[in-house]
Amino acid sequence: MPASGMNYAPKGKPNPVVKPGEFVFAAIGLDHGHIGGMCNGLVEAGATLKYIYDPDPNKVKRYLEMYPQAVAATSEGQVFEDKEVALVASANIASERCPLGLRAMEAGKDYFTDKAPLTTLGQLEAAKAMVEKTGKKYAVYYSERLHVEAAIFAGQLIDDGAIGRVVQTMGMGPHRAGLGWRPDWFFKREQYGGILCDIGSHQIEQFLYYTGSKDAEIMAAQVENFNNPDHPGLDDFGDCTLKGDNGTTGYFRVDWFTPDGLSTWGDGRTFILGTDGFIELRKYCDLGRAKGGGHLFLANKETEQYIDVNGKVGHPYFGQLILDCLNRTENAMTQEHAFKAAELCVKAQRIAEKAKGITREYD
Amino acid sequence: MPASGMNYAPKGKPNPVVKPGEFVFAAIGLDHGHIGGMCNGLVEAGATLKYIYDPDPNKVKRYLEMYPQAVAATSEGQVFEDKEVALVASANIASERCPLGLRAMEAGKDYFTDKAPLTTLGQLEAAKAMVEKTGKKYAVYYSERLHVEAAIFAGQLIDDGAIGRVVQTMGMGPHRAGLGWRPDWFFKREQYGGILCDIGSHQIEQFLYYTGSKDAEIMAAQVENFNNPDHPGLDDFGDCTLKGDNGTTGYFRVDWFTPDGLSTWGDGRTFILGTDGFIELRKYCDLGRAKGGGHLFLANKETEQYIDVNGKVGHPYFGQLILDCLNRTENAMTQEHAFKAAELCVKAQRIAEKAKGITREYD
Repeated sequence: MPASGMNYAPKGKPNPVVKPGEFVFAAIGLDHGHIGGMCNGLVEAGATLKYIYDPDPNKVKRYLEMYPQAVAATSEGQVFEDKEVALVASANIASERCPLGLRAMEAGKDYFTDKAPLTTLGQLEAAKAMVEKTGKKYAVYYSERLHVEAAIFAGQLIDDGAIGRVVQTMGMGPHRAGLGWRPDWFFKREQYGGILCDIGSHQIEQFLYYTGSKDAEIMAAQVENFNNPDHPGLDDFGDCTLKGDNGTTGYFRVDWFTPDGLSTWGDGRTFILGTDGFIELRKYCDLGRAKGGGHLFLANKETEQYIDVNGKVGHPYFGQLILDCLNRTENAMTQEHAFKAAELCVKAQRIAEKAKGITREYD
Repeated sequence: MPASGMNYAPKGKPNPVVKPGEFVFAAIGLDHGHIGGMCNGLVEAGATLKYIYDPDPNKVKRYLEMYPQAVAATSEGQVFEDKEVALVASANIASERCPLGLRAMEAGKDYFTDKAPLTTLGQLEAAKAMVEKTGKKYAVYYSERLHVEAAIFAGQLIDDGAIGRVVQTMGMGPHRAGLGWRPDWFFKREQYGGILCDIGSHQIEQFLYYTGSKDAEIMAAQVENFNNPDHPGLDDFGDCTLKGDNGTTGYFRVDWFTPDGLSTWGDGRTFILGTDGFIELRKYCDLGRAKGGGHLFLANKETEQYIDVNGKVGHPYFGQLILDCLNRTENAMTQEHAFKAAELCVKAQRIAEKAKGITREYD
């Protein structure tokens, strides 16, 4: 059985922004379990899941059990031709996410893809051109912020000035490898994109978001295969230092070393340093203290405190995304921000691979 | 009144390795409150503090109240000429630590200096040459490991194989600035050495120690003055990525942004990632949960647990240092390790300053 990491599909309190049938979507490409989180988020925000499609009927069967309201589409084409479908959500193989997105947008759909949203700079250019051409959205499920209440609340605290001006972020994105059940593409850099592109994309998105950077320079980036010689295509470790265009800085580390004794798939942390205080997020567990996530710690001029964020702020991204699609606004996340995180994670991976002497087909 | 950071002087359970009078030392140079921790550690391990000396009689008076067993020396020379004195301990201005050490060693004393033990590569060469010439020790009080029980216990856990092979360390060394009471030299790079040299030295020492690296390459290093334009000589932020000669890697961040609401002078953390598990140290507080330090968190194949390390392992460094001086052994810390950490922190600072376009007199 896949461990929880691959199937991390948070559920929240339903908070519909539309009535049934007002916003219809389809799920195409079920290769990564994130599709569950993506569907849950949209459904809780009122969206109607009409179709599920994947070339693998076993995957379709499993998701139809989770979403009995949907039907299996016979092909991608059936979804694309249905004018009722406003958005296509996908968590297929990372390197296939952009090609699918281009087809969906060409067919007049908004697109909502799992991270990493693309794996090459060529794909990035194609995606930007398609957005330009069609006016459609290429939205990205950066779940480690968007689907984590503590992470959302941190953004609100920063906006409220709780820690002054943000000057640095540090992120830790450890994951359980679960090598026994991973599909082949998990081990192929051309397909998953490399660790900085894959799970690193969450981290870069958070850096840009919390620091308010529009762009960033990659100051240093590393990937390593420390302990998996049988899987030479796997980066089991990666890290990166970023310098934002507003002078802020950030560091993150990602790895596949979560040990079996840990109560969850990864002890994900975010540390946000401001001129007047700092915030720590313990997203998925409170190490050695409590199972379950949603832990925020704040210290500033007045206070040092723990805040249990569970149930406090929900996951507003999904409702905002639906309304953005309906109203052609950009409240959930700007296209520019989504693409910038994607660009930087691809670039960081390239820099790290080059330093290691890794050669492969790019773009 | 100075805040606790400058006067951090942990006390432990007395655990003498020698009888009164068997190991006599003197304290010269009281510019940094670390001298209190250094003296406490040595005294608890059985050493006899005979003299205190500083050009400033007010400083001498304050420390004589803390250590009534000592007398004020009339000059450095009085200490150097006293054959009973085996070791000189100092926490004077960082840039003066090496010159004092050279004089002490030349006079036949072992030397025990606060970190950073030196501030230029020229001083490093001189210190190495003096060790070579005299056979005396140039020991360094890297307090954030040596005087922190959780940090000592982490080393023991690693030696026991609790987390497999260490592949990375991450350190956070935030400190409270307390700008109102800092002496002038706190703001002069030539004197304090820059943030990576000063408080960064703790971090580099820990990286070398926990990863078992004999040497390291500095992959990236930054210093910033984010929020102190009135003190252009102050680096209020620094970070650095290191690559060990055994393939391990490390990152640390140091800063002067500890907010007033925090219960202690800094939420110091160390994260040690191994192939089979990881360790987190919360050295001085358990943020938002508990005042006081000594918190270790361990996750590996079998367990996820919290360990209160207070009173469990003590501070063996000081007794080992005394015995090393008496027996001419290197159990407390090798000279090579102490100098390597010093070398790398000076080099990291240089790289970071160069990148910022900071120019000053070096060496």
